[in-house]
Amino acid sequence: LPTCGAREALSLALEKLFYPGDELIATSLEWPSYEAMADKNHLRLVRVDVPEDFSYPLQGIEDAITPRTKAIIINSPHNPTGRILSQEEMESLAEIAIQYKLLIISDEVYNGVNTDGFLRSIAGIAGMKERILYINSFSKIFAIPGWRMGYVCGPADLIRIMASEKADYNGNKDTLPQYAIKIALEGYRPQIAAFIDENNASYRKNTEYVCREFEKLGIGLVYPKGAFYVFFRIPPMVGMDSEEFADKLLEAGVAIAPGIVFGKEWNGYMRLCIALKQKEIRLIVKKIRENIKGSDRND
Amino acid sequence: LPTCGAREALSLALEKLFYPGDELIATSLEWPSYEAMADKNHLRLVRVDVPEDFSYPLQGIEDAITPRTKAIIINSPHNPTGRILSQEEMESLAEIAIQYKLLIISDEVYNGVNTDGFLRSIAGIAGMKERILYINSFSKIFAIPGWRMGYVCGPADLIRIMASEKADYNGNKDTLPQYAIKIALEGYRPQIAAFIDENNASYRKNTEYVCREFEKLGIGLVYPKGAFYVFFRIPPMVGMDSEEFADKLLEAGVAIAPGIVFGKEWNGYMRLCIALKQKEIRLIVKKIRENIKGSDRND
Repeated sequence: LPTCGAREALSLALEKLFYPGDELIATSLEWPSYEAMADKNHLRLVRVDVPEDFSYPLQGIEDAITPRTKAIIINSPHNPTGRILSQEEMESLAEIAIQYKLLIISDEVYNGVNTDGFLRSIAGIAGMKERILYINSFSKIFAIPGWRMGYVCGPADLIRIMASEKADYNGNKDTLPQYAIKIALEGYRPQIAAFIDENNASYRKNTEYVCREFEKLGIGLVYPKGAFYVFFRIPPMVGMDSEEFADKLLEAGVAIAPGIVFGKEWNGYMRLCIALKQKEIRLIVKKIRENIKGSDRND
Repeated sequence: LPTCGAREALSLALEKLFYPGDELIATSLEWPSYEAMADKNHLRLVRVDVPEDFSYPLQGIEDAITPRTKAIIINSPHNPTGRILSQEEMESLAEIAIQYKLLIISDEVYNGVNTDGFLRSIAGIAGMKERILYINSFSKIFAIPGWRMGYVCGPADLIRIMASEKADYNGNKDTLPQYAIKIALEGYRPQIAAFIDENNASYRKNTEYVCREFEKLGIGLVYPKGAFYVFFRIPPMVGMDSEEFADKLLEAGVAIAPGIVFGKEWNGYMRLCIALKQKEIRLIVKKIRENIKGSDRND
Protein backbone atom coordinates (compact mmCIF):
# COMPACT_ATOMS: atom_id res chain seq x y z
CA LEU A 1 0.00 0.00 0.00
CA PRO A 2 1.56 3.32 -1.04
CA THR A 3 1.27 5.87 1.77
CA CYS A 4 2.07 9.51 2.57
CA GLY A 5 5.45 8.64 4.03
CA ALA A 6 6.27 5.74 6.33
CA ARG A 7 4.58 7.92 8.95
CA GLU A 8 1.13 7.34 7.40
CA ALA A 9 1.78 3.60 7.16
CA LEU A 10 2.48 3.52 10.91
CA SER A 11 -0.50 5.79 11.65
CA LEU A 12 -2.84 3.49 9.72
CA ALA A 13 -1.43 0.35 11.34
CA LEU A 14 -1.69 1.64 14.89
CA GLU A 15 -5.15 3.08 14.22
CA LYS A 16 -6.76 0.05 12.61
CA LEU A 17 -4.94 -3.17 13.50
CA PHE A 18 -5.14 -3.06 17.31
CA TYR A 19 -7.65 -2.59 20.11
CA PRO A 20 -7.38 -0.02 22.91
CA GLY A 21 -5.19 -1.43 25.66
CA ASP A 22 -3.15 -3.64 23.35
CA GLU A 23 0.57 -3.55 24.05
CA LEU A 24 3.30 -2.93 21.51
CA ILE A 25 6.92 -3.52 22.51
CA ALA A 26 9.85 -1.36 21.46
CA THR A 27 13.00 -0.23 23.19
CA SER A 28 13.30 2.79 25.48
CA LEU A 29 15.09 4.71 22.73
CA GLU A 30 13.00 5.11 19.58
CA TRP A 31 11.63 7.65 17.12
CA PRO A 32 9.25 9.59 19.40
CA SER A 33 6.26 9.19 17.08
CA TYR A 34 5.95 5.49 17.97
CA GLU A 35 4.83 6.47 21.45
CA ALA A 36 2.79 9.47 20.28
CA MET A 37 0.89 7.29 17.78
CA ALA A 38 0.37 4.56 20.38
CA ASP A 39 -0.98 7.11 22.88
CA LYS A 40 -3.31 8.59 20.28
CA ASN A 41 -4.81 5.17 19.62
CA HIS A 42 -5.00 4.19 23.31
CA LEU A 43 -2.33 1.52 22.87
CA ARG A 44 0.47 0.99 25.35
CA LEU A 45 4.01 1.25 24.02
CA VAL A 46 6.13 -0.87 26.34
CA ARG A 47 9.66 0.57 26.37
CA VAL A 48 12.36 -1.99 27.10
CA ASP A 49 15.56 -0.51 28.55
CA VAL A 50 18.54 -0.46 26.22
CA PRO A 51 21.93 -1.19 27.81
CA GLU A 52 24.74 1.38 28.07
CA ASP A 53 26.33 0.12 24.84
CA PHE A 54 23.02 0.61 22.95
CA SER A 55 22.92 -3.08 21.96
CA TYR A 56 19.51 -4.56 21.19
CA PRO A 57 17.83 -5.80 24.42
CA LEU A 58 16.53 -9.05 22.96
CA GLN A 59 16.02 -10.80 26.30
CA GLY A 60 14.28 -7.73 27.72
CA ILE A 61 11.95 -7.70 24.73
CA GLU A 62 10.95 -11.32 25.31
CA ASP A 63 10.56 -10.72 29.06
CA ALA A 64 8.21 -7.80 28.37
CA ILE A 65 5.67 -9.96 26.53
CA THR A 66 2.30 -10.25 28.26
CA PRO A 67 -1.05 -11.68 27.12
CA ARG A 68 -1.90 -8.12 25.93
CA THR A 69 1.18 -7.89 23.70
CA LYS A 70 0.24 -7.75 20.02
CA ALA A 71 3.36 -6.53 18.22
CA ILE A 72 7.05 -5.71 18.42
CA ILE A 73 8.24 -2.60 16.61
CA ILE A 74 11.79 -2.77 15.28
CA ASN A 75 13.84 -0.17 13.44
CA SER A 76 17.10 -1.19 11.80
CA PRO A 77 19.22 0.78 10.99
CA HIS A 78 18.08 2.53 14.12
CA ASN A 79 17.16 6.16 14.69
CA PRO A 80 18.99 7.64 16.63
CA THR A 81 21.87 5.21 17.35
CA GLY A 82 22.52 3.72 13.92
CA ARG A 83 22.37 0.25 15.46
CA ILE A 84 21.78 -2.63 13.05
CA LEU A 85 20.02 -5.85 14.02
CA SER A 86 22.17 -8.90 13.32
CA GLN A 87 20.86 -11.89 11.41
CA GLU A 88 20.84 -13.86 14.71
CA GLU A 89 18.84 -11.15 16.48
CA MET A 90 16.32 -11.08 13.64
CA GLU A 91 16.00 -14.88 13.69
CA SER A 92 15.43 -14.80 17.44
CA LEU A 93 12.83 -12.06 17.00
CA ALA A 94 11.11 -14.11 14.29
CA GLU A 95 11.02 -17.14 16.63
CA ILE A 96 9.56 -15.00 19.43
CA ALA A 97 6.95 -13.55 17.08
CA ILE A 98 5.90 -17.00 15.91
CA GLN A 99 5.90 -18.49 19.43
CA TYR A 100 3.80 -15.68 20.94
CA LYS A 101 1.75 -15.01 17.78
CA LEU A 102 2.91 -11.40 17.50
CA LEU A 103 3.11 -9.02 14.59
CA ILE A 104 6.53 -7.58 13.79
CA ILE A 105 6.33 -3.97 12.62
CA SER A 106 9.64 -3.46 10.86
CA ASP A 107 10.43 0.19 10.17
CA GLU A 108 13.20 0.01 7.57
CA VAL A 109 13.29 3.60 6.34
CA TYR A 110 17.08 3.71 6.83
CA ASN A 111 17.72 0.37 5.15
CA GLY A 112 20.62 0.95 2.72
CA VAL A 113 21.37 4.38 4.16
CA ASN A 114 25.01 4.67 5.28
CA THR A 115 25.37 0.89 5.14
CA ASP A 116 27.39 -1.41 2.95
CA GLY A 117 24.57 -2.27 0.53
CA PHE A 118 21.00 -3.11 1.50
CA LEU A 119 20.49 -5.09 4.68
CA ARG A 120 18.47 -8.26 4.75
CA SER A 121 15.01 -7.68 6.16
CA ILE A 122 13.39 -9.76 8.86
CA ALA A 123 10.57 -10.07 6.31
CA GLY A 124 12.66 -12.68 4.49
CA ILE A 125 12.89 -15.08 7.42
CA ALA A 126 10.72 -18.21 7.17
CA GLY A 127 7.33 -17.86 8.82
CA MET A 128 7.38 -14.07 8.83
CA LYS A 129 5.21 -13.39 5.78
CA GLU A 130 2.08 -13.98 7.81
CA ARG A 131 3.14 -11.75 10.67
CA ILE A 132 5.10 -8.81 9.33
CA LEU A 133 4.29 -5.27 8.47
CA TYR A 134 7.27 -4.16 6.40
CA ILE A 135 7.30 -0.35 6.37
CA ASN A 136 9.62 1.60 4.15
CA SER A 137 9.92 4.86 2.24
CA PHE A 138 11.94 6.43 -0.54
CA SER A 139 12.49 9.55 1.58
CA LYS A 140 15.90 8.72 2.99
CA ILE A 141 17.39 6.34 0.43
CA PHE A 142 16.47 8.62 -2.52
CA ALA A 143 16.84 11.81 -0.44
CA ILE A 144 13.27 12.92 -1.31
CA PRO A 145 11.53 13.35 2.05
CA GLY A 146 9.19 16.01 0.63
CA TRP A 147 7.68 13.51 -1.81
CA ARG A 148 6.13 11.57 1.10
CA MET A 149 6.58 8.31 -0.79
CA GLY A 150 6.16 5.60 1.80
CA TYR A 151 4.70 2.13 1.61
CA VAL A 152 3.75 -0.86 3.69
CA CYS A 153 3.73 -4.56 2.78
CA GLY A 154 2.16 -7.32 4.82
CA PRO A 155 -0.57 -9.95 4.99
CA ALA A 156 -3.36 -9.15 2.52
CA ASP A 157 -6.09 -8.98 5.15
CA LEU A 158 -4.19 -6.38 7.17
CA ILE A 159 -3.24 -4.31 4.13
CA ARG A 160 -6.87 -4.38 3.01
CA ILE A 161 -7.98 -2.88 6.34
CA MET A 162 -5.36 -0.14 6.11
CA ALA A 163 -6.15 0.57 2.44
CA SER A 164 -9.83 0.94 3.22
CA GLU A 165 -9.11 3.38 6.05
CA LYS A 166 -6.72 5.35 3.83
CA ALA A 167 -9.32 5.54 1.03
CA ASP A 168 -11.87 6.91 3.50
CA TYR A 169 -9.45 9.33 5.11
CA ASN A 170 -7.65 10.95 2.17
CA GLY A 171 -7.85 8.70 -0.88
CA ASN A 172 -4.90 7.16 -2.69
CA LYS A 173 -1.28 8.30 -2.46
CA ASP A 174 -0.98 10.80 -5.30
CA THR A 175 0.28 9.64 -8.65
CA LEU A 176 3.11 12.08 -9.56
CA PRO A 177 5.75 10.72 -7.16
CA GLN A 178 4.63 7.16 -7.87
CA TYR A 179 5.13 7.58 -11.63
CA ALA A 180 8.44 9.41 -11.15
CA ILE A 181 9.78 6.60 -8.95
CA LYS A 182 8.42 3.91 -11.30
CA ILE A 183 10.27 5.50 -14.21
CA ALA A 184 13.44 5.79 -12.11
CA LEU A 185 13.28 2.15 -11.00
CA GLU A 186 12.49 0.85 -14.47
CA GLY A 187 15.06 2.79 -16.46
CA TYR A 188 17.70 4.29 -14.18
CA ARG A 189 18.95 1.54 -11.87
CA PRO A 190 22.68 2.26 -12.44
CA GLN A 191 22.17 5.99 -11.85
CA ILE A 192 20.20 5.25 -8.66
CA ALA A 193 22.93 2.90 -7.42
CA ALA A 194 25.57 5.56 -8.15
CA PHE A 195 23.50 8.22 -6.36
CA ILE A 196 23.07 6.02 -3.28
CA ASP A 197 26.78 5.09 -3.29
CA GLU A 198 27.75 8.74 -3.50
CA ASN A 199 25.45 9.72 -0.64
CA ASN A 200 26.63 6.81 1.47
CA ALA A 201 30.29 7.65 0.85
CA SER A 202 29.58 11.18 2.07
CA TYR A 203 27.59 9.93 5.10
CA ARG A 204 30.40 7.50 5.98
CA LYS A 205 33.06 10.18 5.69
CA ASN A 206 31.03 12.54 7.88
CA THR A 207 30.30 9.78 10.41
CA GLU A 208 33.98 8.90 10.68
CA TYR A 209 35.05 12.52 10.97
CA VAL A 210 32.46 13.34 13.66
CA CYS A 211 33.22 10.21 15.69
CA ARG A 212 36.97 10.83 15.50
CA GLU A 213 36.66 14.49 16.53
CA PHE A 214 34.14 13.68 19.29
CA GLU A 215 36.53 11.03 20.63
CA LYS A 216 39.26 13.69 20.83
CA LEU A 217 36.83 15.84 22.82
CA GLY A 218 36.03 12.97 25.17
CA ILE A 219 32.42 12.82 23.97
CA GLY A 220 30.84 9.41 24.59
CA LEU A 221 29.09 7.72 21.69
CA VAL A 222 28.63 4.37 19.97
CA TYR A 223 29.80 4.34 16.39
CA PRO A 224 26.68 4.19 14.15
CA LYS A 225 26.53 1.31 11.66
CA GLY A 226 23.80 2.86 9.54
CA ALA A 227 21.34 5.78 9.18
CA PHE A 228 22.70 9.33 9.31
CA TYR A 229 22.79 10.25 12.97
CA VAL A 230 25.40 10.35 15.71
CA PHE A 231 23.82 9.96 19.14
CA PHE A 232 26.28 11.30 21.70
CA ARG A 233 26.49 11.98 25.40
CA ILE A 234 26.81 15.60 26.50
CA PRO A 235 30.20 15.84 28.30
CA PRO A 236 29.60 16.37 32.03
CA MET A 237 31.72 19.54 32.01
CA VAL A 238 29.12 21.21 29.78
CA GLY A 239 26.83 21.18 32.79
CA MET A 240 23.65 21.46 30.74
CA ASP A 241 20.76 19.19 29.92
CA SER A 242 19.94 18.43 26.31
CA GLU A 243 17.48 21.28 25.82
CA GLU A 244 19.82 23.86 27.28
CA PHE A 245 22.71 22.58 25.18
CA ALA A 246 20.50 22.52 22.06
CA ASP A 247 19.44 26.12 22.74
CA LYS A 248 23.03 27.22 23.26
CA LEU A 249 24.15 25.54 20.03
CA LEU A 250 21.19 27.04 18.19
CA GLU A 251 22.40 30.50 19.24
CA ALA A 252 25.69 29.54 17.60
CA GLY A 253 23.80 28.61 14.43
CA VAL A 254 23.80 24.84 14.90
CA ALA A 255 20.57 22.81 15.12
CA ILE A 256 20.90 19.49 16.95
CA ALA A 257 18.01 17.45 18.33
CA PRO A 258 18.05 17.32 22.15
CA GLY A 259 17.97 13.79 23.55
CA ILE A 260 14.91 14.55 25.66
CA VAL A 261 12.66 14.21 22.61
CA PHE A 262 13.42 10.46 22.85
CA GLY A 263 12.33 10.34 26.49
CA LYS A 264 13.43 11.99 29.73
CA GLU A 265 16.15 9.38 30.41
CA TRP A 266 17.95 10.67 27.31
CA ASN A 267 18.23 14.23 28.55
CA GLY A 268 22.03 13.86 28.71
CA TYR A 269 22.30 13.06 25.01
CA MET A 270 22.07 14.81 21.64
CA ARG A 271 21.35 13.57 18.14
CA LEU A 272 23.44 15.09 15.39
CA CYS A 273 22.29 14.54 11.78
CA ILE A 274 25.33 14.05 9.55
CA ALA A 275 23.46 14.21 6.22
CA LEU A 276 25.18 17.51 5.45
CA LYS A 277 28.01 18.92 3.36
CA GLN A 278 31.50 18.27 4.69
CA LYS A 279 32.17 21.92 5.41
CA GLU A 280 28.91 22.18 7.33
CA ILE A 281 29.94 19.17 9.41
CA ARG A 282 33.32 20.77 10.12
CA LEU A 283 31.61 23.97 11.22
CA ILE A 284 29.24 22.05 13.50
CA VAL A 285 32.10 20.14 15.13
CA LYS A 286 33.95 23.45 15.59
CA LYS A 287 30.90 25.04 17.26
CA ILE A 288 30.40 22.05 19.52
CA ARG A 289 34.10 22.14 20.46
CA GLU A 290 33.89 25.87 21.25
CA ASN A 291 30.77 25.41 23.33
CA ILE A 292 32.28 22.58 25.33
CA LYS A 293 35.44 24.61 25.94
CA GLY A 294 33.31 27.69 26.70
CA SER A 295 31.40 25.71 29.32
CA ASP A 296 34.74 24.66 30.78
CA ARG A 297 35.91 28.25 31.16
CA ASN A 298 32.66 29.22 32.89
CA ASP A 299 33.25 26.68 35.65
CA LEU B 1 -3.29 24.11 4.63
CA PRO B 2 -2.52 21.89 1.64
CA THR B 3 -4.11 18.46 2.07
CA CYS B 4 -4.36 15.07 0.34
CA GLY B 5 -7.51 16.04 -1.51
CA ALA B 6 -10.48 17.95 -0.11
CA ARG B 7 -11.26 14.62 1.53
CA GLU B 8 -8.35 14.96 3.95
CA ALA B 9 -9.31 18.56 4.75
CA LEU B 10 -12.78 17.33 5.77
CA SER B 11 -11.34 14.37 7.66
CA LEU B 12 -9.05 16.64 9.67
CA ALA B 13 -11.82 19.14 10.39
CA LEU B 14 -14.32 16.55 11.57
CA GLU B 15 -11.65 14.75 13.60
CA LYS B 16 -10.17 17.73 15.42
CA LEU B 17 -12.56 20.69 15.53
CA PHE B 18 -15.57 19.07 17.22
CA TYR B 19 -16.46 17.03 20.28
CA PRO B 20 -18.32 13.70 20.26
CA GLY B 21 -22.04 14.39 20.14
CA ASP B 22 -21.70 17.71 18.32
CA GLU B 23 -24.21 18.18 15.52
CA LEU B 24 -23.41 19.20 11.96
CA ILE B 25 -26.24 20.13 9.64
CA ALA B 26 -26.41 19.26 5.95
CA THR B 27 -29.22 18.29 3.62
CA SER B 28 -30.57 14.77 3.17
CA LEU B 29 -28.80 14.50 -0.18
CA GLU B 30 -25.03 14.90 0.09
CA TRP B 31 -21.72 13.28 -0.79
CA PRO B 32 -21.94 10.12 1.38
CA SER B 33 -18.55 10.72 3.03
CA TYR B 34 -19.95 13.62 5.09
CA GLU B 35 -22.02 11.17 7.08
CA ALA B 36 -19.32 8.47 7.13
CA MET B 37 -16.76 10.95 8.50
CA ALA B 38 -19.25 12.29 11.04
CA ASP B 39 -20.03 8.74 12.22
CA LYS B 40 -16.34 7.89 12.50
CA ASN B 41 -15.81 10.88 14.77
CA HIS B 42 -18.97 10.29 16.83
CA LEU B 43 -20.59 13.44 15.47
CA ARG B 44 -24.21 13.59 14.39
CA LEU B 45 -24.90 14.65 10.82
CA VAL B 46 -28.40 16.12 10.86
CA ARG B 47 -29.91 15.61 7.41
CA VAL B 48 -32.50 18.21 6.45
CA ASP B 49 -35.03 17.04 3.85
CA VAL B 50 -34.64 18.54 0.40
CA PRO B 51 -37.88 19.33 -1.46
CA GLU B 52 -38.97 17.57 -4.65
CA ASP B 53 -37.42 20.28 -6.82
CA PHE B 54 -34.06 19.85 -5.06
CA SER B 55 -34.01 23.50 -4.00
CA TYR B 56 -31.94 24.37 -0.93
CA PRO B 57 -34.00 23.87 2.29
CA LEU B 58 -32.85 27.06 3.98
CA GLN B 59 -35.75 27.23 6.46
CA GLY B 60 -35.30 23.55 7.30
CA ILE B 61 -31.62 24.15 7.99
CA GLU B 62 -32.40 26.95 10.44
CA ASP B 63 -35.16 24.89 12.08
CA ALA B 64 -32.71 22.01 12.63
CA ILE B 65 -30.35 24.09 14.79
CA THR B 66 -30.11 22.95 18.41
CA PRO B 67 -27.71 23.94 21.23
CA ARG B 68 -25.50 21.02 20.09
CA THR B 69 -25.20 22.35 16.53
CA LYS B 70 -21.66 23.42 15.72
CA ALA B 71 -21.54 23.71 11.94
CA ILE B 72 -23.43 23.71 8.66
CA ILE B 73 -21.87 21.88 5.72
CA ILE B 74 -22.65 23.35 2.32
CA ASN B 75 -21.63 22.18 -1.13
CA SER B 76 -22.17 24.46 -4.12
CA PRO B 77 -22.18 23.45 -6.93
CA HIS B 78 -23.77 20.43 -5.39
CA ASN B 79 -22.95 16.77 -5.79
CA PRO B 80 -25.14 15.10 -7.06
CA THR B 81 -27.81 17.63 -8.19
CA GLY B 82 -25.65 20.43 -9.61
CA ARG B 83 -27.61 22.92 -7.51
CA ILE B 84 -25.97 26.30 -6.92
CA LEU B 85 -26.60 28.42 -3.84
CA SER B 86 -27.84 31.90 -4.73
CA GLN B 87 -26.23 35.03 -3.29
CA GLU B 88 -29.38 35.51 -1.17
CA GLU B 89 -29.19 31.96 0.19
CA MET B 90 -25.53 32.43 1.07
CA GLU B 91 -26.26 35.73 2.81
CA SER B 92 -29.04 34.10 4.81
CA LEU B 93 -26.70 31.23 5.73
CA ALA B 94 -24.05 33.73 6.81
CA GLU B 95 -26.61 35.52 9.01
CA ILE B 96 -27.68 32.22 10.55
CA ALA B 97 -24.04 31.24 11.17
CA ILE B 98 -23.30 34.55 12.88
CA GLN B 99 -26.54 34.53 14.90
CA TYR B 100 -26.07 30.96 16.20
CA LYS B 101 -22.24 31.13 16.32
CA LEU B 102 -21.80 28.26 13.87
CA LEU B 103 -18.97 27.29 11.58
CA ILE B 104 -19.77 27.07 7.88
CA ILE B 105 -17.89 24.24 6.17
CA SER B 106 -18.05 25.19 2.50
CA ASP B 107 -17.06 22.37 0.18
CA GLU B 108 -16.41 24.14 -3.13
CA VAL B 109 -14.63 21.42 -5.08
CA TYR B 110 -16.99 21.97 -8.04
CA ASN B 111 -16.68 25.76 -8.01
CA GLY B 112 -16.05 26.79 -11.61
CA VAL B 113 -16.87 23.34 -12.97
CA ASN B 114 -19.61 23.45 -15.59
CA THR B 115 -20.54 26.98 -14.51
CA ASP B 116 -20.27 30.35 -16.22
CA GLY B 117 -17.01 31.39 -14.56
CA PHE B 118 -16.16 31.00 -10.89
CA LEU B 119 -18.96 31.45 -8.39
CA ARG B 120 -18.66 33.81 -5.48
CA SER B 121 -17.93 31.98 -2.27
CA ILE B 122 -19.78 32.44 0.99
CA ALA B 123 -16.28 33.06 2.39
CA GLY B 124 -16.44 36.58 0.90
CA ILE B 125 -19.52 37.64 2.85
CA ALA B 126 -18.89 40.06 5.73
CA GLY B 127 -18.42 38.37 9.09
CA MET B 128 -17.57 34.98 7.60
CA LYS B 129 -13.78 35.07 7.83
CA GLU B 130 -13.95 34.12 11.51
CA ARG B 131 -16.38 31.25 10.95
CA ILE B 132 -15.64 29.56 7.67
CA LEU B 133 -13.70 26.53 6.61
CA TYR B 134 -13.29 26.99 2.89
CA ILE B 135 -12.43 23.62 1.39
CA ASN B 136 -11.37 23.23 -2.21
CA SER B 137 -9.21 21.11 -4.48
CA PHE B 138 -7.62 21.24 -7.92
CA SER B 139 -8.94 17.74 -8.67
CA LYS B 140 -12.08 18.70 -10.58
CA ILE B 141 -11.27 22.14 -11.99
CA PHE B 142 -7.85 21.04 -13.32
CA ALA B 143 -9.03 17.45 -13.97
CA ILE B 144 -6.21 16.00 -11.83
CA PRO B 145 -7.98 13.93 -9.15
CA GLY B 146 -4.99 11.58 -8.83
CA TRP B 147 -2.75 14.41 -7.64
CA ARG B 148 -4.79 14.71 -4.40
CA MET B 149 -4.21 18.44 -4.32
CA GLY B 150 -6.74 19.79 -1.86
CA TYR B 151 -6.59 22.64 0.61
CA VAL B 152 -8.49 24.31 3.40
CA CYS B 153 -8.56 27.96 4.45
CA GLY B 154 -10.05 29.32 7.65
CA PRO B 155 -9.36 30.99 10.99
CA ALA B 156 -5.68 30.61 11.94
CA ASP B 157 -6.39 28.83 15.24
CA LEU B 158 -8.47 26.14 13.50
CA ILE B 159 -5.98 25.68 10.66
CA ARG B 160 -3.18 25.35 13.22
CA ILE B 161 -5.01 22.49 14.94
CA MET B 162 -5.58 20.71 11.63
CA ALA B 163 -1.98 21.31 10.49
CA SER B 164 -0.62 19.84 13.71
CA GLU B 165 -2.78 16.73 13.35
CA LYS B 166 -1.75 16.35 9.70
CA ALA B 167 1.95 16.68 10.62
CA ASP B 168 1.55 13.94 13.22
CA TYR B 169 -0.49 11.68 10.96
CA ASN B 170 1.34 11.77 7.64
CA GLY B 171 3.48 14.91 7.40
CA ASN B 172 3.08 17.64 4.80
CA LYS B 173 1.28 17.35 1.48
CA ASP B 174 4.03 16.25 -0.91
CA THR B 175 5.84 18.88 -2.91
CA LEU B 176 5.69 17.67 -6.54
CA PRO B 177 2.02 18.55 -7.20
CA GLN B 178 2.40 21.78 -5.22
CA TYR B 179 5.32 22.96 -7.36
CA ALA B 180 3.61 21.87 -10.58
CA ILE B 181 0.48 23.84 -9.70
CA LYS B 182 2.51 26.85 -8.51
CA ILE B 183 4.31 26.95 -11.86
CA ALA B 184 1.00 26.60 -13.71
CA LEU B 185 -0.66 29.39 -11.73
CA GLU B 186 2.31 31.73 -12.03
CA GLY B 187 3.06 31.32 -15.70
CA TYR B 188 0.16 29.68 -17.51
CA ARG B 189 -3.03 31.53 -16.54
CA PRO B 190 -4.32 31.92 -20.11
CA GLN B 191 -3.70 28.23 -20.86
CA ILE B 192 -5.47 27.24 -17.64
CA ALA B 193 -8.45 29.47 -18.49
CA ALA B 194 -8.62 27.95 -21.98
CA PHE B 195 -8.42 24.42 -20.54
CA ILE B 196 -11.23 25.11 -18.08
CA ASP B 197 -13.37 26.77 -20.78
CA GLU B 198 -12.86 23.80 -23.07
CA ASN B 199 -13.81 21.31 -20.36
CA ASN B 200 -16.81 23.37 -19.33
CA ALA B 201 -18.02 23.65 -22.93
CA SER B 202 -17.86 19.87 -23.18
CA TYR B 203 -19.60 19.37 -19.82
CA ARG B 204 -22.32 21.85 -20.83
CA LYS B 205 -22.86 20.13 -24.18
CA ASN B 206 -23.07 16.73 -22.48
CA THR B 207 -25.41 18.07 -19.78
CA GLU B 208 -27.75 19.58 -22.38
CA TYR B 209 -27.72 16.45 -24.52
CA VAL B 210 -28.42 14.11 -21.59
CA CYS B 211 -31.18 16.29 -20.15
CA ARG B 212 -32.84 16.65 -23.58
CA GLU B 213 -32.69 12.91 -24.28
CA PHE B 214 -33.86 12.01 -20.78
CA GLU B 215 -36.79 14.39 -21.15
CA LYS B 216 -37.77 12.55 -24.35
CA LEU B 217 -37.67 9.31 -22.34
CA GLY B 218 -39.81 10.81 -19.60
CA ILE B 219 -37.00 10.60 -17.06
CA GLY B 220 -37.46 13.06 -14.18
CA LEU B 221 -34.53 15.32 -13.31
CA VAL B 222 -33.64 18.85 -12.37
CA TYR B 223 -31.30 20.54 -14.81
CA PRO B 224 -27.87 20.84 -13.11
CA LYS B 225 -26.40 24.34 -12.93
CA GLY B 226 -22.87 23.18 -12.13
CA ALA B 227 -20.64 20.15 -11.37
CA PHE B 228 -20.67 17.22 -13.78
CA TYR B 229 -23.52 15.00 -12.69
CA VAL B 230 -27.10 14.43 -13.75
CA PHE B 231 -29.19 13.10 -10.87
CA PHE B 232 -32.26 11.46 -12.34
CA ARG B 233 -35.28 9.47 -11.24
CA ILE B 234 -35.52 5.88 -12.43
CA PRO B 235 -38.71 5.71 -14.56
CA PRO B 236 -41.37 3.66 -12.72
CA MET B 237 -41.74 1.32 -15.71
CA VAL B 238 -38.15 0.09 -15.12
CA GLY B 239 -39.47 -1.52 -11.94
CA MET B 240 -36.04 -1.69 -10.30
CA ASP B 241 -34.38 0.00 -7.39
CA SER B 242 -31.16 1.90 -7.93
CA GLU B 243 -28.83 -0.99 -7.19
CA GLU B 244 -30.69 -3.37 -9.49
CA PHE B 245 -30.73 -0.77 -12.26
CA ALA B 246 -27.03 -0.01 -11.72
CA ASP B 247 -26.23 -3.73 -11.94
CA LYS B 248 -28.28 -4.11 -15.10
CA LEU B 249 -26.57 -1.12 -16.73
CA LEU B 250 -23.18 -2.41 -15.63
CA GLU B 251 -23.89 -5.64 -17.53
CA ALA B 252 -24.48 -3.42 -20.55
CA GLY B 253 -21.08 -1.79 -19.94
CA VAL B 254 -22.33 1.40 -18.31
CA ALA B 255 -21.29 2.41 -14.78
CA ILE B 256 -23.73 4.77 -13.01
CA ALA B 257 -23.81 5.42 -9.28
CA PRO B 258 -27.01 4.07 -7.68
CA GLY B 259 -28.93 6.69 -5.67
CA ILE B 260 -28.90 4.52 -2.56
CA VAL B 261 -25.30 5.50 -1.85
CA PHE B 262 -26.73 8.93 -0.94
CA GLY B 263 -29.19 7.38 1.52
CA LYS B 264 -32.07 4.93 1.33
CA GLU B 265 -34.63 7.60 0.37
CA TRP B 266 -32.72 8.02 -2.90
CA ASN B 267 -33.08 4.42 -3.98
CA GLY B 268 -35.26 5.52 -6.90
CA TYR B 269 -32.52 7.74 -8.35
CA MET B 270 -29.26 7.41 -10.24
CA ARG B 271 -26.27 9.72 -10.62
CA LEU B 272 -24.75 9.88 -14.08
CA CYS B 273 -21.32 11.49 -14.42
CA ILE B 274 -21.16 13.46 -17.68
CA ALA B 275 -17.40 14.19 -17.59
CA LEU B 276 -16.93 11.91 -20.58
CA LYS B 277 -16.34 12.07 -24.30
CA GLN B 278 -19.40 12.93 -26.39
CA LYS B 279 -19.51 9.52 -28.05
CA GLU B 280 -19.36 7.83 -24.65
CA ILE B 281 -22.28 9.96 -23.48
CA ARG B 282 -24.26 8.99 -26.60
CA LEU B 283 -23.56 5.33 -25.94
CA ILE B 284 -24.65 5.65 -22.32
CA VAL B 285 -27.90 7.36 -23.28
CA LYS B 286 -28.49 4.63 -25.87
CA LYS B 287 -27.93 1.89 -23.26
CA ILE B 288 -30.23 3.59 -20.77
CA ARG B 289 -32.89 3.97 -23.46
CA GLU B 290 -32.60 0.27 -24.38
CA ASN B 291 -32.79 -0.79 -20.76
CA ILE B 292 -35.86 1.31 -20.11
CA LYS B 293 -37.55 -0.06 -23.24
CA GLY B 294 -36.36 -3.56 -22.34
CA SER B 295 -37.99 -3.22 -18.93
CA ASP B 296 -41.15 -2.12 -20.66
CA ARG B 297 -41.25 -5.21 -22.85
CA ASN B 298 -40.75 -7.44 -19.81
CA ASP B 299 -43.94 -6.12 -18.20
